[in-house]
Amino acid sequence: MNKMIAECIGTFTLVLLGCGAAVIAGADIGLTGISFAFGLALIGMAYGIGPVSGCHINPAVTLGVVAAGRMRMGEAIGYMIAQVAGAIAAALVLMIIASGKAEYSIAENGLGQNGWGAGYLGEYGMAAAFLFEVVATFLFVVVILGATGAGAPAAMAGLAIGLTLVVIHLVGINVTGVSVNPARSIGPALFAGATALSQLWLFIVAPVIGGVLAGVLFKSGLLDSQGD
Amino acid sequence: MNKMIAECIGTFTLVLLGCGAAVIAGADIGLTGISFAFGLALIGMAYGIGPVSGCHINPAVTLGVVAAGRMRMGEAIGYMIAQVAGAIAAALVLMIIASGKAEYSIAENGLGQNGWGAGYLGEYGMAAAFLFEVVATFLFVVVILGATGAGAPAAMAGLAIGLTLVVIHLVGINVTGVSVNPARSIGPALFAGATALSQLWLFIVAPVIGGVLAGVLFKSGLLDSQGD
Amino acid sequence: MNKMIAECIGTFTLVLLGCGAAVIAGADIGLTGISFAFGLALIGMAYGIGPVSGCHINPAVTLGVVAAGRMRMGEAIGYMIAQVAGAIAAALVLMIIASGKAEYSIAENGLGQNGWGAGYLGEYGMAAAFLFEVVATFLFVVVILGATGAGAPAAMAGLAIGLTLVVIHLVGINVTGVSVNPARSIGPALFAGATALSQLWLFIVAPVIGGVLAGVLFKSGLLDSQGD
Amino acid sequence: MNKMIAECIGTFTLVLLGCGAAVIAGADIGLTGISFAFGLALIGMAYGIGPVSGCHINPAVTLGVVAAGRMRMGEAIGYMIAQVAGAIAAALVLMIIASGKAEYSIAENGLGQNGWGAGYLGEYGMAAAFLFEVVATFLFVVVILGATGAGAPAAMAGLAIGLTLVVIHLVGINVTGVSVNPARSIGPALFAGATALSQLWLFIVAPVIGGVLAGVLFKSGLLDSQGD
Repeated sequence: MNKMIAECIGTFTLVLLGCGAAVIAGADIGLTGISFAFGLALIGMAYGIGPVSGCHINPAVTLGVVAAGRMRMGEAIGYMIAQVAGAIAAALVLMIIASGKAEYSIAENGLGQNGWGAGYLGEYGMAAAFLFEVVATFLFVVVILGATGAGAPAAMAGLAIGLTLVVIHLVGINVTGVSVNPARSIGPALFAGATALSQLWLFIVAPVIGGVLAGVLFKSGLLDSQGD
Repeated sequence: MNKMIAECIGTFTLVLLGCGAAVIAGADIGLTGISFAFGLALIGMAYGIGPVSGCHINPAVTLGVVAAGRMRMGEAIGYMIAQVAGAIAAALVLMIIASGKAEYSIAENGLGQNGWGAGYLGEYGMAAAFLFEVVATFLFVVVILGATGAGAPAAMAGLAIGLTLVVIHLVGINVTGVSVNPARSIGPALFAGATALSQLWLFIVAPVIGGVLAGVLFKSGLLDSQGD
Repeated sequence: MNKMIAECIGTFTLVLLGCGAAVIAGADIGLTGISFAFGLALIGMAYGIGPVSGCHINPAVTLGVVAAGRMRMGEAIGYMIAQVAGAIAAALVLMIIASGKAEYSIAENGLGQNGWGAGYLGEYGMAAAFLFEVVATFLFVVVILGATGAGAPAAMAGLAIGLTLVVIHLVGINVTGVSVNPARSIGPALFAGATALSQLWLFIVAPVIGGVLAGVLFKSGLLDSQGD
Repeated sequence: MNKMIAECIGTFTLVLLGCGAAVIAGADIGLTGISFAFGLALIGMAYGIGPVSGCHINPAVTLGVVAAGRMRMGEAIGYMIAQVAGAIAAALVLMIIASGKAEYSIAENGLGQNGWGAGYLGEYGMAAAFLFEVVATFLFVVVILGATGAGAPAAMAGLAIGLTLVVIHLVGINVTGVSVNPARSIGPALFAGATALSQLWLFIVAPVIGGVLAGVLFKSGLLDSQGD
């Protein structure tokens, strides 16, 4: 139970502060500020609720951890339910706060939803969006599994993981808004309209592929620190 | 006595450098720079005076720690007096330094005071301001209590807490200027004019509610790292 | 084998995310954002694959480590082959993702290649470019050898090294785009056209000189922490 | 001898990369980028040469450490000579690199020198400049002495100190360009013309006062972590 509460609060924080930075302050802080918002929210939670649940706050991470053989699927399902619940709650609270500004409209300003194609940020195509999400999630989960594995200084993991999320956002906001996290995409998409919902599948499929690939790579032993 | 001196210096630093960044450099460094100023000032003090007092430098944090059952109310009162004293001294010193620029006027440029509504940054309404301050302080104190609790790497706590303060500012400066800290709000408000004083109540009430809620959650055991 | 896989993935990540930030987001995030992208990518990999290979992901670092007497030349050659392979693969993947934007053209927007002289960023001369690359790589490898040496807190090394790479980029992007890493330069240059290829020698020679000088300095014992 | 070499290299790095960011990239990275450059350069050196000399790279810090009773004056003099030598060498190398751009002129673009009054950044008066330098150096050295003292996690000190230098720059570049370090001011001033030289006294006197005050405070025991 504690672990599910922790995952729910953690994902809530990631979505509220990450998407919140985009919606409430994006015009002022730019892509750099938004990138730091997502990564630093993750760092805060890694140390705040990490001792309870490990702070996955991301179904692609949870499935990568399962694929690496470090977690049972049964527990993973509970984690993922809690993550999605936290993300949806965050999108709701963000919508309420954002509406405190008279000029705000969800149709105009969005809710930090992911996307691609005409009208979405850099207007990248779907293939580039898919490739970016697979590769970025793969690298992200490599950092997570490596930094929390044998031979790595455990205390530093949360910091390294969060700073990796910053740089992934610096590169990829123009491409997809950066998901690498199905829960982070589901929350805002539920409220942000038809386009976000119709594109949601990519932000579930691609991150899961990337995360599981990283898990399989670690499971294979090819990135064991004891290897030659 | 040492603890009160430490809390006074710490809160002095947070307000002088955080509000100072807004007043002296805000037009140049933008919301991103101001956000880092608040968070990095907290990180400096977490390691500089943390060994003495724990570096609360925030009455909402102190009351959250009390609610979590980690501190007696008697000691907390001394902490909070020292925090408010440090914040007021910082506002004074900042006013003197800022006045070293001929064009500076407190009526025009302010002193980094918090606020909401017409004429204040993003012009968010009072309800959004209140909700933001409660939620942000709650999450902030969750990070503080978790990162300094059992199972977390104690050495990293100050860093994680300060980076959380950065992201809270990235999101919320447009909404309230971000308090999450009654002392930080009281200092500038005393010198910044009638509006700041009339709105000060919110920046005492809302952060205290958020901080105490986080303390109660930890007290309940639902975020114990030993829980299931 | 594990070490070569790790070095290949690490250099892939550095080039994809560092150069990717420049190509995909440079106009939005500016030199500050690009600088953080390179440094934070290195931090992620330092903890993600560092336990396997030490995370050199840079031939100038590997040769500096050899010069310091901490690695055999035989192993170094394997490292450097893996690094260059990873960098080339990253340049390819970046090109594919970047091409997902209709307006992208490698001739116009480049691939994050290094350079100097007329038409390249600050249009600095070759002598300044050479001097900068030697000095910056020297200081970078001093940090690497010192932070991973006796008496230093090993857990912090990756963080300190990555943040050093950030500041080197803050200073030097205008001068050379900042290499300090032959692999990082080779990858994009292979696809970015004749100028990048014709200037590539400098980004191999100068970083190697700087890195080896740092290694020799440590080998001499003049920076031993036990010295007087 | 090793300690003096370390202090010389460390101060060289701080001045080359900190002032270099201002001179070579200031127009692109703004005050935020320059602030990070100074702080991150310090972090790199704290772990790179800190194991050798403690990485003061600042005479005001060295004198604060002496005042705190943690170092003999005899050794301090050697440290300070090495620091000033490193700073002067850095100013020279920076001048050479900067001159690699045709439009560069030291009279026009400066060398990152400190200053105040008409024509200098925010055009703050001398009293504000003096007050800022005393207070900022005092707080900076409080962080240094606290973070490296009993009860603090020693491994984190360099990071906390460097991030404190970032926030001090965020606030104070408009006021004085931020010295808090006589060596950092002496280096550029020697080449930057009559005004910088005539104002140099303040950037020696004020930081030394601030640093020594912090040392005296620690010496008094009022910030002992064992105190009540």
